[in-house]
Amino acid sequence: MKNNRVAVFRKEHFNAAHRLNNPNWSDEQNERVYGKCNNLNYHGHNYDLVVQVTGEIDSETGYVMDMKVLSDLIKIEVLDKFDHKNLNLDTPEFANINPSAENIAIVIYDKLRTKLKSELDLKIRLYETERNFVEFPVS
Amino acid sequence: MKNNRVAVFRKEHFNAAHRLNNPNWSDEQNERVYGKCNNLNYHGHNYDLVVQVTGEIDSETGYVMDMKVLSDLIKIEVLDKFDHKNLNLDTPEFANINPSAENIAIVIYDKLRTKLKSELDLKIRLYETERNFVEFPVS
Amino acid sequence: MKNNRVAVFRKEHFNAAHRLNNPNWSDEQNERVYGKCNNLNYHGHNYDLVVQVTGEIDSETGYVMDMKVLSDLIKIEVLDKFDHKNLNLDTPEFANINPSAENIAIVIYDKLRTKLKSELDLKIRLYETERNFVEFPVS
Amino acid sequence: MKNNRVAVFRKEHFNAAHRLNNPNWSDEQNERVYGKCNNLNYHGHNYDLVVQVTGEIDSETGYVMDMKVLSDLIKIEVLDKFDHKNLNLDTPEFANINPSAENIAIVIYDKLRTKLKSELDLKIRLYETERNFVEFPVS
Amino acid sequence: MKNNRVAVFRKEHFNAAHRLNNPNWSDEQNERVYGKCNNLNYHGHNYDLVVQVTGEIDSETGYVMDMKVLSDLIKIEVLDKFDHKNLNLDTPEFANINPSAENIAIVIYDKLRTKLKSELDLKIRLYETERNFVEFPVS
Amino acid sequence: MKNNRVAVFRKEHFNAAHRLNNPNWSDEQNERVYGKCNNLNYHGHNYDLVVQVTGEIDSETGYVMDMKVLSDLIKIEVLDKFDHKNLNLDTPEFANINPSAENIAIVIYDKLRTKLKSELDLKIRLYETERNFVEFPVS
Repeated sequence: MKNNRVAVFRKEHFNAAHRLNNPNWSDEQNERVYGKCNNLNYHGHNYDLVVQVTGEIDSETGYVMDMKVLSDLIKIEVLDKFDHKNLNLDTPEFANINPSAENIAIVIYDKLRTKLKSELDLKIRLYETERNFVEFPVS
Repeated sequence: MKNNRVAVFRKEHFNAAHRLNNPNWSDEQNERVYGKCNNLNYHGHNYDLVVQVTGEIDSETGYVMDMKVLSDLIKIEVLDKFDHKNLNLDTPEFANINPSAENIAIVIYDKLRTKLKSELDLKIRLYETERNFVEFPVS
Repeated sequence: MKNNRVAVFRKEHFNAAHRLNNPNWSDEQNERVYGKCNNLNYHGHNYDLVVQVTGEIDSETGYVMDMKVLSDLIKIEVLDKFDHKNLNLDTPEFANINPSAENIAIVIYDKLRTKLKSELDLKIRLYETERNFVEFPVS
Repeated sequence: MKNNRVAVFRKEHFNAAHRLNNPNWSDEQNERVYGKCNNLNYHGHNYDLVVQVTGEIDSETGYVMDMKVLSDLIKIEVLDKFDHKNLNLDTPEFANINPSAENIAIVIYDKLRTKLKSELDLKIRLYETERNFVEFPVS
Repeated sequence: MKNNRVAVFRKEHFNAAHRLNNPNWSDEQNERVYGKCNNLNYHGHNYDLVVQVTGEIDSETGYVMDMKVLSDLIKIEVLDKFDHKNLNLDTPEFANINPSAENIAIVIYDKLRTKLKSELDLKIRLYETERNFVEFPVS
Repeated sequence: MKNNRVAVFRKEHFNAAHRLNNPNWSDEQNERVYGKCNNLNYHGHNYDLVVQVTGEIDSETGYVMDMKVLSDLIKIEVLDKFDHKNLNLDTPEFANINPSAENIAIVIYDKLRTKLKSELDLKIRLYETERNFVEFPVS
């Protein structure tokens, strides 16, 4: 079972506005299901994002992946697109997807997955608040 | 100098959307001064609020002020009004005030000051993010 | 391997007194094994509790589970029973179980497991202090 | 105004049980004032203690005070006496003092004040929970 | 699937200097790969170390493992060797191993693995900074 | 006493190696005073730096000072000079000053003071570890 696979983690953050709303529902149903998260004029969060990449250590560098490269990748693929934005109005990714923490995590996973070598595993942890957070995928 | 004045602190939080904008300025000037904080469709934060109340210990209770009473007061005066709201659109307090962290702190101070006994001193610390925060008043 | 299972986490906390003691042992053995955790008159902790629920995202709501519902469930099943209590004296759950962090985590797991739909997986992480914590179950 | 006075801070922690109760009051009044903090069989906390010492830098050492010496002092005067104890039952300091956070802070101040050189200023910050804390003295 | 296996975690920390450098490379290549982490005269970190031990609860003690014993073991095997040291110059463990976070985690794993009973599983999480951390092994 | 002076805070961090040593002392005296902080080959820290600037709110911007400007100033004056460096060997600022936390805080204060408008007050808080930190100046 001894191997040289290690998980490396990089924590970043972004600040965004959002609103939970299902356009197929009545206002009453949206209010009942989402409560104050349905507020018409949006509310917002400081999202903390932890990206986990798992793979074998490169014997030359001692790295699974250069954290600077990973940080730059997250900046380009996630922060530049979502930071200081209204997820519902400003980002095409959520044009037809409700920006729940669960869905945001999957969207971020899909964006980063295509940019990482296939032999590396990827997991996303997203904190909407210190007390509410999600993880994707789960084994 | 030995006395029985103690400062007590209660930490609460709320999540809100906002946008920094000066209506007397051109779009270009707002963009230049506020950068991404001027985003037209708002962005948001998890605001951490620390309320400091300073006074003499009541010899009967051992309290400067009952933290439950202080917590309830913050809930009624601040959280119920600002949590899961758009500060620019949903709150009359910021109809004519730019919701910078500095101004939010002063607005919260003014709301709580009128509800506390005059012999108690009050100070507000407001975290817009873990890395940007403000304090009012300063001695 | 791509699926839509997501883990959602809710963090809560409670404050309690406890004492580690095995009634089948002599005072000397209890003192030797548990040290200061065996203090006759109890000591206490701020317990931080992280409840992890794993399941498929509901395509209508975008939720694995409504965090408000999960928070209310934890309040009813755990906080209302353990918060500001003496675990050894005030809670029937620990009448015959030593309230070690390990055992508290299993007790909380059992209480919540019966209230969650069977298709949802459940995991408990319990912090006795910032530096000592436990997780149950482990795969 | 330029001088060489610096404040140095050392953070320590201890875990203790306590109960808020005023023996001059009826059970009903104690319950009404202290609520669940009055629980007969005690509850407990992880107390975080921050000790602030202010003075001039010693030009030889570059220190206001050796943090190792301050840490040892806190251990002897505070942690060895209060850690894993029941403040009401096990500590003579609170035989006649209600162990509210305010009063605990003053007791700790008095214990450390006598052990520090008179030219050093002392301030105590005590966290009962992450969200409730106190500071003594206040200027 | 219900069993009595629990994971217990102990968090410790140490402060060390290090430098990333591959002696088989030219100075230019080391500078290109490691950037400022290659600084000739070293830089340093506060390393936070979380040791996870998984096993069955002992029905007598209520413990998977006594946290005091685990803490002492980490002190002897890790902190006494690495704390306030230069990993490249002062520790034989890194005489021929580049002290990347990944490699430090594996070295710590190997040191603790030989001291734990074989029926206990071990996992290491090492924080180089709050935003860069690693975990070993991964299943 | 009501005024519009507000304190704004910006938190940054840097990682550096250092060693405490007084060249006027014998090795024995340095070892006795500084203990493991005197380690010949250096050790290191993740320094967290909180810069506090106090002044009047600009009624046009709602800012005491643009946090982006303050962050850039800290980057140029402090992080670019100290991050991933050996304070004793790589930085002329500490050629003749012992890099204790107290002295580092004063050096940072002096560097930033000359770059800020005179009507703004400045205070530095520097965390050497989570448990040891300093503040300068003190009123």
